[in-house]
Amino acid sequence: MIDNSESKAFVQVFEIPPYRLGKLSGLTFGVKDLIDIEGYKTGGGNPTWENSHPPATCHAICVEQLLSHGAICKGKTTLDELAYSLLGENFFYGTPLNPKAPDRVPGGSSSGSASAVACGQVDFALGTDTGGSVRVPANNCGIVGFRPSHGRISLAGVVPFAPSFDTVGIFAKTEKICADVARVLLANEKKRGALKEVLILRDAFAMSDKEVQAALEPVLKQIRQRYPCREVVLEEIFGQGVTFETLRKIYRTLQWAEVWSSLGAWIEDVRPSFGSLIAANFESAKKCDRTQIADAIQKREEIKNKFNTFLGESSLLCLPTRALLAPKKGSVSIHSPGNHTSTPSFTPLAGLASSPELTLPYGHSQEGVPVGISFLASQGNDELLLQQFEDGFD
Amino acid sequence: MIDNSESKAFVQVFEIPPYRLGKLSGLTFGVKDLIDIEGYKTGGGNPTWENSHPPATCHAICVEQLLSHGAICKGKTTLDELAYSLLGENFFYGTPLNPKAPDRVPGGSSSGSASAVACGQVDFALGTDTGGSVRVPANNCGIVGFRPSHGRISLAGVVPFAPSFDTVGIFAKTEKICADVARVLLANEKKRGALKEVLILRDAFAMSDKEVQAALEPVLKQIRQRYPCREVVLEEIFGQGVTFETLRKIYRTLQWAEVWSSLGAWIEDVRPSFGSLIAANFESAKKCDRTQIADAIQKREEIKNKFNTFLGESSLLCLPTRALLAPKKGSVSIHSPGNHTSTPSFTPLAGLASSPELTLPYGHSQEGVPVGISFLASQGNDELLLQQFEDGFD
Repeated sequence: MIDNSESKAFVQVFEIPPYRLGKLSGLTFGVKDLIDIEGYKTGGGNPTWENSHPPATCHAICVEQLLSHGAICKGKTTLDELAYSLLGENFFYGTPLNPKAPDRVPGGSSSGSASAVACGQVDFALGTDTGGSVRVPANNCGIVGFRPSHGRISLAGVVPFAPSFDTVGIFAKTEKICADVARVLLANEKKRGALKEVLILRDAFAMSDKEVQAALEPVLKQIRQRYPCREVVLEEIFGQGVTFETLRKIYRTLQWAEVWSSLGAWIEDVRPSFGSLIAANFESAKKCDRTQIADAIQKREEIKNKFNTFLGESSLLCLPTRALLAPKKGSVSIHSPGNHTSTPSFTPLAGLASSPELTLPYGHSQEGVPVGISFLASQGNDELLLQQFEDGFD
Repeated sequence: MIDNSESKAFVQVFEIPPYRLGKLSGLTFGVKDLIDIEGYKTGGGNPTWENSHPPATCHAICVEQLLSHGAICKGKTTLDELAYSLLGENFFYGTPLNPKAPDRVPGGSSSGSASAVACGQVDFALGTDTGGSVRVPANNCGIVGFRPSHGRISLAGVVPFAPSFDTVGIFAKTEKICADVARVLLANEKKRGALKEVLILRDAFAMSDKEVQAALEPVLKQIRQRYPCREVVLEEIFGQGVTFETLRKIYRTLQWAEVWSSLGAWIEDVRPSFGSLIAANFESAKKCDRTQIADAIQKREEIKNKFNTFLGESSLLCLPTRALLAPKKGSVSIHSPGNHTSTPSFTPLAGLASSPELTLPYGHSQEGVPVGISFLASQGNDELLLQQFEDGFD
């Protein structure tokens, strides 16, 4: 276990005992500081936010569920400012440790929650995932990460960011802990029907970086041995001409629009200080052409319907969590070449489809950098996804 | 048309032209003052709220969708304070006119939106519905009201109240306008498969007030003539021992808990002035036993799964929107006998099930008081529900 003086994962360490014994008894957890803990200010990773908001009067609903099932809360974890980055480098509070790749970023925005689990400080942690804020740091830190179907875990007591995509997600030390915590938050112990097949999204693997491909090759081999598999390409799901870049643009339009709806009034009113990358992100949200929203929503609905129909109730989709290895610390700035446009981004898919995604830390580059593999189910079929992997993989 | 000096439906009258022509061209709408309009403060029906929040920097996503499809925004409508009542009497801003029953309350919390449509000031209006805030005022004012499936219409730019139940809903002059507006907001023009049958919830009719039963008898007769029908009782859906009171208690626990998560910090920080009924509601939310949340969520998930499985993709459930006629103005106070416990409440059902509900103004008491009849579909099957009734009923 690496302690907090080294990991910088927690912004505040304390202990809240559970309400009673339960199926999570003995497990400890951290809470991203975008999720309310009674009596503490929800800081949102930004000093102006913290100073301009009163303390929470109660725990968020998701925290109440965990305390009612026996888990012990160990404190609040750091994040990218107001959740608006996938990097994990906070201008004000620094960069939590990625223990498996200490020269690389932990990923964000739920950076501290991922770091705390990867460092062994807690058994699991709560994050939020709008566009990848659980999946990316889980991938970078080499741990299990789960984004649920949109709407299945309560967002009451969580700062709204882009409500049509916001979810409360989970980081965990093991697949089993992730599944147990997820079942508590999803409030459903029932198993779902059997898995029909795993659909391997061939073009997502093909367009990933060579190191990612190499890292996932042995993982794919194991998957093909364990599950009935079939190769598919993106066009089979969405029709001709729809690429990951198409998905990213639709997602970006809607995320920008919703972020400005959620946070624009506060920003224009208090004029907060932001780190330069975050300031640039909010500037994009502000400048978003809002006459494009209606068309983007229509496209999103088509994507969602096609994706969920394609997967149905018994298939899973398999793809790399990220196309690139985690960037080196300090390597990304507002002056970096636009790697958004040159690198495919897979994370918007689950957001647009409202579907659950589980990232598993089964790949490693030659230098040992973690590489995650992702599985998606159709919206609402979180249980199908969790039960496939809860006993681990080998 | 009754103007605003008489209806008091609008708190602010202005005109925002549409971005372009579209399928809603020529239609006018009002917006509940819990939903952002750029440049205006979102007042939430409470002066302290209005004074302690900055103006909105952009329109809510749902408003953008309407403007992009040709509709004309006519202003902001009044509501119960912070949406926390089904009555429609605002201590600070008065009671909007219920034109079909002027001695009775319009219902809340989207009181002004219902009144504006019923008075002919606009063709349709946006409201929000957490526990009945569209369905109840539509029922009371004798107009069409629609609550969508949870999660299908964006909540970005809408003040969060109880996020697991919050929805943006529609009031409309006609069934056709309601369906057209809903299809814009749901962003889906496609028809869904054919209706299998209408399931008439016998015990909900039987436990309603005699006047409601009498008003809906000729309506039920017409329904039986037009659609394949089957009588069902609540126990067939949920199993033995589950009553409307069971549903109300689960709903209430979760709503109280989420309301305090959403608004508790602001209330404890600024100590707002509230009317006495609203103050009592927030006091209940504050005192809610939060150790009960986890169990209530588990029960809610069971209810949701059973309901949506029961209805499937092609059946609708039919029941009275309310068990009682709209109360007389000024008749309800904190000293009123607890009519919550003595009168069945049907509105928690759609909230717990995340399912859509359409209330249609087809019943009238002997004195002409409007009585609504409701239809529910399973979660996500909004289109099935809308297409059955868009051409009216006789």
